Amino acid sequence: MTDAPRPEARAPRGFVDRRARDLAFERQILAKVSAVYERYGFEALDTGALEYADALGKFLPDADRPNEGVFALQDDDEQWMALRYDLTAPLARFVAQNWETLPKPFRRYAFGSVWRNEKPGPGRFREFTQCDADTVGSARPEADAEIIAMAVEGLEAAGLPTGSAVIKINNRKLLNGLLAAAGVTDEAQKLGVLRAVDKLDRLGPEGVRLLLGEGRKDESGAFTKGAGLSAAGADAVLAFTAAGASGRSETLDKIAAVIGGSAEGDEGLAELAAIDRALASLGVGADRAMFDPSIVRGLEYYTGAVFEAELLLQTKDEKGNAVRFGSIGGGGRYDDLVARFTGERTPATGFSFGVSRLASALRAAGRELGGETRGPVVVIAFSQDDMPHYFQVVGELRSAGIPAEVYLGGSSMKAQMKYADRRMAPAAIMLGGDEIAAGKVTIKDLDLGRALSAGVTDNTEWREQRPGQQTIDRGELVAAVRKIIEAQG
Amino acid sequence: MTDAPRPEARAPRGFVDRRARDLAFERQILAKVSAVYERYGFEALDTGALEYADALGKFLPDADRPNEGVFALQDDDEQWMALRYDLTAPLARFVAQNWETLPKPFRRYAFGSVWRNEKPGPGRFREFTQCDADTVGSARPEADAEIIAMAVEGLEAAGLPTGSAVIKINNRKLLNGLLAAAGVTDEAQKLGVLRAVDKLDRLGPEGVRLLLGEGRKDESGAFTKGAGLSAAGADAVLAFTAAGASGRSETLDKIAAVIGGSAEGDEGLAELAAIDRALASLGVGADRAMFDPSIVRGLEYYTGAVFEAELLLQTKDEKGNAVRFGSIGGGGRYDDLVARFTGERTPATGFSFGVSRLASALRAAGRELGGETRGPVVVIAFSQDDMPHYFQVVGELRSAGIPAEVYLGGSSMKAQMKYADRRMAPAAIMLGGDEIAAGKVTIKDLDLGRALSAGVTDNTEWREQRPGQQTIDRGELVAAVRKIIEAQG
Repeated sequence: MTDAPRPEARAPRGFVDRRARDLAFERQILAKVSAVYERYGFEALDTGALEYADALGKFLPDADRPNEGVFALQDDDEQWMALRYDLTAPLARFVAQNWETLPKPFRRYAFGSVWRNEKPGPGRFREFTQCDADTVGSARPEADAEIIAMAVEGLEAAGLPTGSAVIKINNRKLLNGLLAAAGVTDEAQKLGVLRAVDKLDRLGPEGVRLLLGEGRKDESGAFTKGAGLSAAGADAVLAFTAAGASGRSETLDKIAAVIGGSAEGDEGLAELAAIDRALASLGVGADRAMFDPSIVRGLEYYTGAVFEAELLLQTKDEKGNAVRFGSIGGGGRYDDLVARFTGERTPATGFSFGVSRLASALRAAGRELGGETRGPVVVIAFSQDDMPHYFQVVGELRSAGIPAEVYLGGSSMKAQMKYADRRMAPAAIMLGGDEIAAGKVTIKDLDLGRALSAGVTDNTEWREQRPGQQTIDRGELVAAVRKIIEAQG
Repeated sequence: MTDAPRPEARAPRGFVDRRARDLAFERQILAKVSAVYERYGFEALDTGALEYADALGKFLPDADRPNEGVFALQDDDEQWMALRYDLTAPLARFVAQNWETLPKPFRRYAFGSVWRNEKPGPGRFREFTQCDADTVGSARPEADAEIIAMAVEGLEAAGLPTGSAVIKINNRKLLNGLLAAAGVTDEAQKLGVLRAVDKLDRLGPEGVRLLLGEGRKDESGAFTKGAGLSAAGADAVLAFTAAGASGRSETLDKIAAVIGGSAEGDEGLAELAAIDRALASLGVGADRAMFDPSIVRGLEYYTGAVFEAELLLQTKDEKGNAVRFGSIGGGGRYDDLVARFTGERTPATGFSFGVSRLASALRAAGRELGGETRGPVVVIAFSQDDMPHYFQVVGELRSAGIPAEVYLGGSSMKAQMKYADRRMAPAAIMLGGDEIAAGKVTIKDLDLGRALSAGVTDNTEWREQRPGQQTIDRGELVAAVRKIIEAQG
């Protein structure tokens, strides 16, 4: 070794190493969701991690080394590139680039890492896996309905019991129409209304009423300027957000009664009615996908239907208080993203969820699949000379589909036992010289033996106690191991 | 839309978009190889895309914006980070960071993107998927043997027929020992010998003899300085590289005869002998894993056994000439990578392959699995009013596990036919008003009909010709579609 200073072994903040158990769970979620998405006719697409910054759009670099929300760097030819921060921007770039040759509408799903150059925190990472499905090139509300039905089925396939989550659906055109009827046309004022409505959960109707009007002073005395609606306008908005009902058509009736009048509002209503019909034809009832006029979704780029998947279960926070788990994904219709490149409006709609967020939701619902990740059967290495026998054993087990390995570390029995324990090995195989000569093999059921042998560190003592051990004919090895694994469930 | 200048829709050079067919193939390869690796007792690990540059080690940034081979950028706290360029450097960082709590030896496999900031070219990308398996913490040659046997089985599980590829194995200690016996101890001179031997394929023994000695003038007249061995030394090296034989023990005998004498050479021989015994016990013969003293492997960090998987099939280059496909992966023993962090030598060995490279090899071997990626069954949308009927049909088909969708683009029959064609749909479903009233449904076998209807663009004409069409009772729909898909194979 050189005497160069040694670097510290650490990963950058917000980047996590994931071990076998979490990975197996996330891979299973993605496999099950992908199978549903493919059954809906969505094809897989994978784009690169780096995109040109101008193609990503939202975070154009304006400084020498832009770090605003993205990880950006300059290519050899001085062009700025950035790690993708979602899967929608790369989709828009791909669709604009390949529009002529794509099947239209283009239905694609994708999963992969996205990167956000933000302050990491508990449950907040700078790299995480998203899974998206989008339809580009269909303005029909039925395309939204398909995405919603597929999201419902995908979440259930991943393991969420029916009824533990619901998709809440709204349409941006309703509120826009209502505001148009009330004479509000200023975009900044509309945005203020959206922001106020988005706080319904936290502030309640009376707090939101203040934010819709002149403004609100919070407990600390800080004043937030309001959207400046008249009292009647604020009433209308609040009546709209409260128009939810248990049935989808009941909600539509209630919405119609409060927004009446504008062309855009009527368009939004007609779209929701078409979504309702398609969902009903697909067998998706209001217990799985409901209309909720209070749903806003932050992103400004949505232009029509918006939807949010919400876990209905309560979980505990760090202090043990019951909290609503809340959103596990969302999406909506965005008709302008492809036009950034082409100048032509291209209708699109999609749904996105974070895989580790869904994994947390599944754990909250008690649906972590697979349980403990069991390691391989471990063949104890007593003697270098008998290695060929050990390898024959692992070969046989592997051929029978049973993960197995010869222990290849140091030769102390303590180390071998510790290893089998850390790997959660179901069984250890012992082939001593006597056993080999007699055509026998000893198998130790490690679940049975683990508790008993916990305090035993001495080779001789351990071999004498033989907790959970049996010695059988060598020819019965595979069958005996299989029996132990099956009994361990 | 704003009037802002529109960005061009393009991906950075060397980054590719992968569509469903290629993705399905690569995912299948990874699933099959992962299953083998898990059967060998290797556990999955996933590390982040970005690592601190000093942890990656090889490409320490020394300029303001280092771009030498990696994609690097500075974190908020000024520390340099870089996208990982392989999966071995992050493994070394992970192992050093978690050594105390890991099962030892630590056997892990991983797959994921790696990034190289190099000039892209045909088949050379700046982002590609690697799949690695490594054992850290075992100095035993049997750990190398396990990696080799697993590589053999993994490649075969991915679809390579037995005999179409072979793992060629060598040991760095043999050549080191031979050079020590010949009095060569200078590291730079040893490196020159390795470089010369690495050119055997291209220059043949006589060209390599010049490079081992004073040097060689090529066709252009350019002179390459040689390693400076004596004639006897060059003879010994060449005799060593030519010591391969068809059987593994025959090769060991031939090697022993030419390298004799040094402690390091004897150590290398003993290690290969142990690898041979373990491979034999695992049922891996010389047709699948052979010793070949001419194998060098470029990377300087290898310290013992090195191995290379080679596809034996010939393929055609762009000009149609037969060429050897060559290497599809490789690896070896590297005992110093973890010590970069800890200062303690930690024995390790591993094998790595590029997934798209293996996919190319499988295509060359005629083993592309899955063939064409079929799209969903497409339900033709004749009328907005009948949408509920269409959605009932797709719901039924999906419940039966058959990918299906309602066409949701524009309403022209031409567009619908073109869509079904581009998606490689197996069948189209037609539900006109008459059919709905009569409890019937029309199914078109698109493979049967595709050729016949190629020139037909008119709705009326198309409906009259009805190539490959059948009208059946609505209740027989799923069975009839399944029959068509099965008949299409």
